[in-house]
Amino acid sequence: MKPLHAAALADAAVLHDRLTKPRGSLGRLEAIGIQLCGIAGRCPPPLPVPAAVAVFAGDHGVVAEGVTPWPQEVTAQMVANFAAGGAAINVLARQVGATVTVVDVGVASDLPAGAGVVSARVRPGTANIAVEPAMAVDECRAAMATGGQVAGSLVAGGARALVTGEMGIGNTTAAAALIAALTGLPAAAVTGRGTGVDDAGLARKVAVVERSLARHEASGPSGAWSAADLPLTSPFASSRRRQLGGRPPEEGFPIMPLDVLASLGGLEIAALAGFIVAGTESGVPVIVDGVIAGAALLAAERLVPGVAARCLAGHRSTEPGATAVLDVLGMEPVLDLGIRLGEGSGACLALPVVEAAARVLREMATFDSAGVTDKAGS
Amino acid sequence: MKPLHAAALADAAVLHDRLTKPRGSLGRLEAIGIQLCGIAGRCPPPLPVPAAVAVFAGDHGVVAEGVTPWPQEVTAQMVANFAAGGAAINVLARQVGATVTVVDVGVASDLPAGAGVVSARVRPGTANIAVEPAMAVDECRAAMATGGQVAGSLVAGGARALVTGEMGIGNTTAAAALIAALTGLPAAAVTGRGTGVDDAGLARKVAVVERSLARHEASGPSGAWSAADLPLTSPFASSRRRQLGGRPPEEGFPIMPLDVLASLGGLEIAALAGFIVAGTESGVPVIVDGVIAGAALLAAERLVPGVAARCLAGHRSTEPGATAVLDVLGMEPVLDLGIRLGEGSGACLALPVVEAAARVLREMATFDSAGVTDKAGS
Repeated sequence: MKPLHAAALADAAVLHDRLTKPRGSLGRLEAIGIQLCGIAGRCPPPLPVPAAVAVFAGDHGVVAEGVTPWPQEVTAQMVANFAAGGAAINVLARQVGATVTVVDVGVASDLPAGAGVVSARVRPGTANIAVEPAMAVDECRAAMATGGQVAGSLVAGGARALVTGEMGIGNTTAAAALIAALTGLPAAAVTGRGTGVDDAGLARKVAVVERSLARHEASGPSGAWSAADLPLTSPFASSRRRQLGGRPPEEGFPIMPLDVLASLGGLEIAALAGFIVAGTESGVPVIVDGVIAGAALLAAERLVPGVAARCLAGHRSTEPGATAVLDVLGMEPVLDLGIRLGEGSGACLALPVVEAAARVLREMATFDSAGVTDKAGS
Repeated sequence: MKPLHAAALADAAVLHDRLTKPRGSLGRLEAIGIQLCGIAGRCPPPLPVPAAVAVFAGDHGVVAEGVTPWPQEVTAQMVANFAAGGAAINVLARQVGATVTVVDVGVASDLPAGAGVVSARVRPGTANIAVEPAMAVDECRAAMATGGQVAGSLVAGGARALVTGEMGIGNTTAAAALIAALTGLPAAAVTGRGTGVDDAGLARKVAVVERSLARHEASGPSGAWSAADLPLTSPFASSRRRQLGGRPPEEGFPIMPLDVLASLGGLEIAALAGFIVAGTESGVPVIVDGVIAGAALLAAERLVPGVAARCLAGHRSTEPGATAVLDVLGMEPVLDLGIRLGEGSGACLALPVVEAAARVLREMATFDSAGVTDKAGS
């Protein structure tokens, strides 16, 4: 991924210091505005509206391990709820004028006919990651390709920002396993209560993540790769990955972390990784939601270093894995509201702040234009 | 002030647990939605839009002490900038469809004619609080009355939420003095860098706040009152205040903290206190900005206990006094973006989150209506 546009970044920093406010007084809003310029390659930046939310849905075989109190059919029921406009993400997206595209990449149950859902089911849910790989690498690649296609078509349809959304009963367990594998952190440090398991449930979940990681690490040469081998953004990353058994770039999505994603991830997580890569490649900012999207972002950044610089972390999920991803990637979330719903809810709530960051650079008067005296010594 | 509507609060908590999401998963958004119901006295709550921002402007004699690098005429220049629509608050308010009403309650310099500013100047800036009271108690009462009138007319004009804004070169010094006097905290704990003074400037500012507090405490019977005497919400507060020299309620704005506000505050701070009291009395939520509005809120809560429960803290200003106010009042800010601009900017940025909190309760499907299975054991 090419780096953020250096001249646009510099122009934005200079412009911010000429606007009628004490320098730096808009805090993170200034940093976000500068980042938007770097992403777009111009200053002031384009508005990140209208935005488009994509909600990828997939089921998880690991629910057989009792990691969640919710029955698996809730994934399909919530997909129907998304299609009917009654879920939180529908409400939040409507408020900000964003579209919601619901994509079945791996729901395990039947969906009601004519439900307004993009049908791209790769398989009916993953296998149980505690005992076998979640999916074949080719299935992972197919889910990623779907995510990429959705991003491309939303941007072609006029979206000026993309928001990651997902649904999948059991997916905080898969996300924790993926984050542990990609960061080297222990399972207990990145596994949370998800939709709300009790202490015993959390302990069971951590044990399931540990078993999944052990199974993955024992699973052969490509699975033997560990994050510690590979700095996040290294000029040698690509060749090192190939050396470690990654597939060559010409096979589509290029390299190594694909094996981790296929082994421990989920179909909606793979789709999100493809969505993030393609979305950032298309030049629009991608606003990333909580822990599931964070796991996808981490995989995407390992696949295509530079992707994360073109994303914004919409909020800080209460899931510990979400904070682990933000720390590893050096990202500050826009919001911190104690949200742990997923669906893209936290990212959607962040959109008005991101829009404000762009508007400030586009619309505020400068000291010169407004005839306001700058402070002494400036 | 009457307490939040108990039945509406209870209804909102019950409704939240029936919506199609794990219980509690929307975090602070749920708490805000419940508060909105308590303020409005019904569930679901009305939308807090359209909102109206009022920006009260006043100058500060304490600038003679060198507490800020900005020349005093910047207050008037920024008022003209607000009127012309070029300031940050104009940009942020436009985005959320809020009006901006600019009110001169105490600017020291001439304003351009026909500038679209409500003219309600009580006096051309306060006196230097380090050497004498900022204003007479009657002047303070007049500024508060103006704030109250502005709130009333905005709500009568259709505003469904009010946003506090202000402008006044030097006003972080007055706010720090006021917060120290009303909380009993030392000057150094509540005085910040404001628009950006260096270490020497900060030390000078702390010393000026200390001199102002000493001058205030030495200034006679009404000024001898200290916050430690008076719990924030006490059934005895009213009589205790009278005993301490406060004016009886029938004289308009009732009691004691008026002396502190007149002695250490600012004209725009007094106007904001009146705006907050009248706004909350009118039944709409008031979204409070940073440290200046926080000082006004603290004074308002001391004047009319119960006011703060009808306010939302829009954001956490980087000024230490702002956090002191939030801690004393037990409030959690909506946003934490490192903003220290004032004008109402942080509060205006919080409005979409507050709106979302209302929309979730109004628009989301329930488990029953959507046919979604609730989790096991619920």
